[in-house]
Amino acid sequence: MHTLKVSLGSRTYPIYIGKDLLTQSGLITQHLPQKRAAVVTDSNVAPLYLEKLTATLTASGITVTPIIIPAGEQHKDWQSLNSIFDALLTARCERKTALIALGGGVVGDLTGFAAATYLRGVPFIQVPTTLLALVDSSVGGKTAVNHPQGKNMIGAFYQPQAVIADTATLGTLPERELGAGLAEIIKYGLIRDLPFFEWLESNIDALNSRDPAAMAFAIQRSCENKAAVVAADEREETGERALLNLGHTFGHAIEAGMGYGAWLHGEAVAAGMVVAARTSQRLGLLRADDVGRITAILERARQPVTIPDLGTHRYLELMGHDKKVEGGKLRFILMKEMGRAFLTADVSREVVEGALQDSLHHA
Amino acid sequence: MHTLKVSLGSRTYPIYIGKDLLTQSGLITQHLPQKRAAVVTDSNVAPLYLEKLTATLTASGITVTPIIIPAGEQHKDWQSLNSIFDALLTARCERKTALIALGGGVVGDLTGFAAATYLRGVPFIQVPTTLLALVDSSVGGKTAVNHPQGKNMIGAFYQPQAVIADTATLGTLPERELGAGLAEIIKYGLIRDLPFFEWLESNIDALNSRDPAAMAFAIQRSCENKAAVVAADEREETGERALLNLGHTFGHAIEAGMGYGAWLHGEAVAAGMVVAARTSQRLGLLRADDVGRITAILERARQPVTIPDLGTHRYLELMGHDKKVEGGKLRFILMKEMGRAFLTADVSREVVEGALQDSLHHA
Repeated sequence: MHTLKVSLGSRTYPIYIGKDLLTQSGLITQHLPQKRAAVVTDSNVAPLYLEKLTATLTASGITVTPIIIPAGEQHKDWQSLNSIFDALLTARCERKTALIALGGGVVGDLTGFAAATYLRGVPFIQVPTTLLALVDSSVGGKTAVNHPQGKNMIGAFYQPQAVIADTATLGTLPERELGAGLAEIIKYGLIRDLPFFEWLESNIDALNSRDPAAMAFAIQRSCENKAAVVAADEREETGERALLNLGHTFGHAIEAGMGYGAWLHGEAVAAGMVVAARTSQRLGLLRADDVGRITAILERARQPVTIPDLGTHRYLELMGHDKKVEGGKLRFILMKEMGRAFLTADVSREVVEGALQDSLHHA
Repeated sequence: MHTLKVSLGSRTYPIYIGKDLLTQSGLITQHLPQKRAAVVTDSNVAPLYLEKLTATLTASGITVTPIIIPAGEQHKDWQSLNSIFDALLTARCERKTALIALGGGVVGDLTGFAAATYLRGVPFIQVPTTLLALVDSSVGGKTAVNHPQGKNMIGAFYQPQAVIADTATLGTLPERELGAGLAEIIKYGLIRDLPFFEWLESNIDALNSRDPAAMAFAIQRSCENKAAVVAADEREETGERALLNLGHTFGHAIEAGMGYGAWLHGEAVAAGMVVAARTSQRLGLLRADDVGRITAILERARQPVTIPDLGTHRYLELMGHDKKVEGGKLRFILMKEMGRAFLTADVSREVVEGALQDSLHHA
């Protein structure tokens, strides 16, 4: 087992990465302030891991309240959130009752927001079961619920007590979700870690075949990168944390424009990173063969590298709801070179429209 | 104008108390990070003060997005909260767009929760227009929305940038709301400030007739008491802040049991303080004439000193949802003597039932 620390002063917490951690009861129970907990999961993950986790906790004398929400990004809404609150209140969960999120990014984000706001805040533990959640949403304390007018528009910064990253859960992950997770892993290379990007170019086949050693390294390196960024800018105030949103401004527009759940989040981010790369290319920051390397590795991870034709007007409208908008001006995460992302508001509408056009078809 | 500081480290903020502050543009605009703001108010307050505040802001070049929710505790719900989010997104309010709460406790609590969670947190300014909001809900950073199963069950600790307490707004306050505010003022005397309680006994008639000097003193002393408690225990961790909830465990049960909006919050707290006093009396902590002084001053403030007959079983059920419950045990704020409240879980069911019975009828 590898333990990694996210350094946030009094909110510092550990990420445990390893195989079969779900069955190690002490790992979780040391973070529970009372002998009961609520486990929130979804209809896909419940049949796979709910019983296992419950057995581990029950064996340590913990009383478990299970809460199951419907699976899918389209259910990251008020209705699911309220069903969590209803269940917590009906079971009379208290301020010291921890919420454990068992699942992917939707379960983690919703459960985290519920933990941040139930009785004005209760303890929270992340048990990610998808590659995307392992390397992204379970690290950093962003919690949220979607609004019909935009993804993650309502939420809170709320740090977990611990993240239990059991790599054994990747064994049951559908191929499509594996690929979407690889997109977020590739993202870290593009933002701030060119050596990691190069390692990924050499090892993408091993990751596609779920080679345990390659997977463990990719997860650890991704979490280290994210933890470093979050420690430097927990609440996205200096702009550094915003870099983690490479591909997200365009990606969120795809997700909202196509209807939540049609594209996986990682898939939308993959296509969004291609638009960001083409925007960078139009600004003379990336060369054509840089863009070629980016599309090539994403394609090897079976990710989309073109965007759906929603019309540039609709794209700009959807992006106008981005949380990074300031003074009415869109701000973009672009690449100033391979492995170095930056935040800028200085991009003309023509350049963005051109990059969107470029990204409609395979170059 | 009197300025009072709530000391919370990097979240320290000022409370400005004085007459006609609504027309002093610099006071508010110094706390706005951009030249726009959203003003949230309700259908009662909008006709009285929305235009005045908007004019003050507009004169300083601030663009105002007005958002009006229906008045009343029964509207402190998800629907009102979502209508605020809808309006913010439609107007494309950004992370630097401040939310200004213009109104009583419901507007303040809902707007504060919206500010805590919109785009994961935007700046927030309180402009209380009721006596209760001036002395209670606008100080301390508790924000919330009600759930059908309990009051303020969902919320966040979120501090404002500033509180603008314009005492001129008390001129339009209905008699009933004035009295409900006096109940919360009396509460501070009972919790931790016997000299203030004695001052209130001498000056309750002046307060009833809205004497400006008496009112200004009562508001300032109340805010000072609350600010001291909040500075010592911002997130209700040591138990000190919980003392501010004197009368609230019983009061919330009355509010929920009668249907939100039937009793004003201050009225329910008044009756709840009487139950707390009678519980303290049954435990031998208060004498009969102490309880007599408490009911007497509340009656002079035209507050209820008996509770509705919901049945002791129903009261205990409603109180079981209290946020102070720990390990399944109810915890109560009682008085160990006049002017000294304390938190205890050590009260038998029989004593509580007896105190509830005692409080059904005027002693």
